[in-house]
Amino acid sequence: MTAVATSYSPRTGDRVRSAAPTTQSQLVTITTTAATAAAVLTGTSPAERRRWLYALADALEAYTEELVTLADLETALGSQRLTVELGRTISQTRFYGDVAVEGSYLGVAIDDAIGLTRMSRPLGPVAVFGASNFPFVLGVVGHDTSAAIAAGCPVVAKAHDAHLGLSLRLAEITTTALAGAGAPVGTYALAVGFDTGVALVKAPEITALAFTGSERGGRALWQAANEREIPIPVYAEMGTVNPVVVTRAGAADLDTITDGFVSCYAASAGQYCSKPGLFFAPAGTGAAARVAAALEATGPNPTMLTEAIAKSVRTGLDGFTRAGARIVLELGGHAPGWSAPAAILEAPISAVTEGSRLLEECFGAVAIVVEYTTAEELHAALRAMQPALVAAVWAPTDGPDVEASAVIDILAAKVGRVVLNGWTTGAGHSWAQNHGGPWPATSNAAGTSIGGAALNRFVRPIAYQTVRDDWLPEGARRSNPWAVTRRVNGVIEPSPHVVP
Amino acid sequence: MTAVATSYSPRTGDRVRSAAPTTQSQLVTITTTAATAAAVLTGTSPAERRRWLYALADALEAYTEELVTLADLETALGSQRLTVELGRTISQTRFYGDVAVEGSYLGVAIDDAIGLTRMSRPLGPVAVFGASNFPFVLGVVGHDTSAAIAAGCPVVAKAHDAHLGLSLRLAEITTTALAGAGAPVGTYALAVGFDTGVALVKAPEITALAFTGSERGGRALWQAANEREIPIPVYAEMGTVNPVVVTRAGAADLDTITDGFVSCYAASAGQYCSKPGLFFAPAGTGAAARVAAALEATGPNPTMLTEAIAKSVRTGLDGFTRAGARIVLELGGHAPGWSAPAAILEAPISAVTEGSRLLEECFGAVAIVVEYTTAEELHAALRAMQPALVAAVWAPTDGPDVEASAVIDILAAKVGRVVLNGWTTGAGHSWAQNHGGPWPATSNAAGTSIGGAALNRFVRPIAYQTVRDDWLPEGARRSNPWAVTRRVNGVIEPSPHVVP
Repeated sequence: MTAVATSYSPRTGDRVRSAAPTTQSQLVTITTTAATAAAVLTGTSPAERRRWLYALADALEAYTEELVTLADLETALGSQRLTVELGRTISQTRFYGDVAVEGSYLGVAIDDAIGLTRMSRPLGPVAVFGASNFPFVLGVVGHDTSAAIAAGCPVVAKAHDAHLGLSLRLAEITTTALAGAGAPVGTYALAVGFDTGVALVKAPEITALAFTGSERGGRALWQAANEREIPIPVYAEMGTVNPVVVTRAGAADLDTITDGFVSCYAASAGQYCSKPGLFFAPAGTGAAARVAAALEATGPNPTMLTEAIAKSVRTGLDGFTRAGARIVLELGGHAPGWSAPAAILEAPISAVTEGSRLLEECFGAVAIVVEYTTAEELHAALRAMQPALVAAVWAPTDGPDVEASAVIDILAAKVGRVVLNGWTTGAGHSWAQNHGGPWPATSNAAGTSIGGAALNRFVRPIAYQTVRDDWLPEGARRSNPWAVTRRVNGVIEPSPHVVP
Repeated sequence: MTAVATSYSPRTGDRVRSAAPTTQSQLVTITTTAATAAAVLTGTSPAERRRWLYALADALEAYTEELVTLADLETALGSQRLTVELGRTISQTRFYGDVAVEGSYLGVAIDDAIGLTRMSRPLGPVAVFGASNFPFVLGVVGHDTSAAIAAGCPVVAKAHDAHLGLSLRLAEITTTALAGAGAPVGTYALAVGFDTGVALVKAPEITALAFTGSERGGRALWQAANEREIPIPVYAEMGTVNPVVVTRAGAADLDTITDGFVSCYAASAGQYCSKPGLFFAPAGTGAAARVAAALEATGPNPTMLTEAIAKSVRTGLDGFTRAGARIVLELGGHAPGWSAPAAILEAPISAVTEGSRLLEECFGAVAIVVEYTTAEELHAALRAMQPALVAAVWAPTDGPDVEASAVIDILAAKVGRVVLNGWTTGAGHSWAQNHGGPWPATSNAAGTSIGGAALNRFVRPIAYQTVRDDWLPEGARRSNPWAVTRRVNGVIEPSPHVVP
């Protein structure tokens, strides 16, 4: 744990912030304090934790200007986008508090015939590894952190090197806000440094791991978690290549679609886990040229989050061309700092086969247009793809379209979310949201890192058999003191705390 | 895959049934047929699958006499116990069909504000490794099989060598009953042989694994599943040592409790995953002598399921004595066949420390009495134990008992089920049931292998965004054609199909 963590300005390459990594003995203090807090949190009510989360949301709101400035300096994502993102983060922080109070995640069930009462309890301290590309929404105080605290689990977050200054400031604001609202010491802490992150996964007090990032990083942490003496659940959102399919009938409106596609794949320098990387269009529509024209009109000049990402864009383009794709248009990539080109490529559908480099993610403003002639070859290409987080289909909805519904069926077997006539980015928090997907899109397809079900990842059920009512955990008692949604002798009793 | 599978009569050691192992090419046919069936099952309604499961239950009922006779021959568990067990199996098979129709497991949610509809879909073919000790309830057509089919997943079950003849006959009855009810070919299949089991876990068509058995077996399969190119979820119920605690006040009724304890730990030769292996009683109550007297009165002469289990009882006893326990009474173990002793041991609480052999499972009619003097030493011993499936506490409920509630709190952090004034065995199927627990009791504490939540293990969520209603999977459509429980804009709409 010797390497100093450092963040840089992507626009200039200048150093912004350095910090010494958390030492092993500091980490032990952090994780044991988190374990002590976990014992307290297990006994708290969802309403109490909602108060903490609301206080955290209020604090994030109060520091909006400072946080956006800091984030923009370290990410170059732009203050407009970052202001919107922070707003969503504030809203989601409150949402998870509300979801906790509604209480479905506790799975309370009472079966009088055999004297059983079930209620879930929090797992304990959760390690959170946030994403580079969403410093707020999926960062050190993002979805995973709020969902874990809402579920009653303390969080030890790993600072992201790319936005180290922001991570440190967010952690200060968070620990202060939580403490001010009455949360015990250890409810939230931050650890700094790459080796510290690995040590964190191995810490015996850590009971679950949430990660958003690359497949390589996610797999490494998943492996480390499985090599522990007591393995722990890993919820790694690793992303892959998200496809867009335009049906033959859908192509009638192709110019609008290609404009939208460019806005989607090239925005924020294409640094989205839900960025659409493959664009399937009917042959003879000139889709690649149209996308290129739309891209040229936006005049992109991407600045990437990190030097490594900027390099990986060039490596990715090389890989794609060697795998049979042709660059139709490449723009930018010669600015100071972490500059990389935006590009649109095209590839023959015959090159879209299982294991092809074309089916691997290139993080950045890069996408490949693939034309198809028959439904069969389109379906075969989609089936050759790796599972992904999300897919989009463009098709008219005012008549029968067997093309579209067949494609949706194929995609549903592959992805965690299917969008019709919309774009893949922008997964909002709601009950029905699912930000997940089969391996390797995530390490656990049963979990979602966004939405009401996000809390479920951090609890486990316990059944209490003929246990005296006042010896049950408070939330499981007959009188339903927390007013949670529950099932009594098969009949659902919804909570009065409805979260719309 | 060369070793012939063979079952024996535990009472005599004579061979009962042999069968050639499933060959690699047969296994490929089985798993690819299962994958074909999976595509069909994904489109079926829960009501349709309930019809299949009811037909299966009817068939099991019709063949009760034959199945019990066959099971008794290969397990020596006795026809009375086996008849009860088969009855429970028939009932649980119908239960999972009912749970599917109620539909909560699908997690349907509709959020109009962002045009999202979520519904889970079945994972695909599930490999089921049944237990030796419950040839019906947790066998090749037990909880895991019924829950998987109810959730829309075909099952490839591994025949248990110990009850090979029964496994083969159950598979015949099951495939015939399912086919007769209209289930597609491949909805259920059986594979024979140890190496075949390993190959089954590696088969690319298999999407999840359910296992009940030893920690060694469960860990090996978990490891194999994680080494696949595409890792799959593993739900292994491996069991450990389940504790019983008698509080000081509870000891007033100690004779009744010790009689009950013997009935619990020594029944069916102690071959339960929920067998209580450690009995904590207040010092000075003569608990070990009382248990010994009760054991002597029952005059046990255990016959074990397999030769290996019989040997492991003796190995376990040796290990316990070397770890500081003393054998108070040992009975039986000299009959023909797979005979092993029943025994009660006692150990000083000072020997009950983390990592002690006393805290490892000895499958069989063997238990250890431990006397405690102070609450502190009792709590320390309980905290030193490995996580377990279940724990029991005996304490009066007609007054305040801080002892009991403190113990319940400690145990709740360790186990999947806590019983007050009752026994650990006999986990019935209901909504509130939880047969699980933290690692190494199971490989996934979020899952239960018994109860209404058992289906949840075999599905994954998908969100559909602004997808035309008639292109959604049937169960997710606005008109709710399957009448499943769902959440619409935050408000729960319970299914009319209430399962009591």
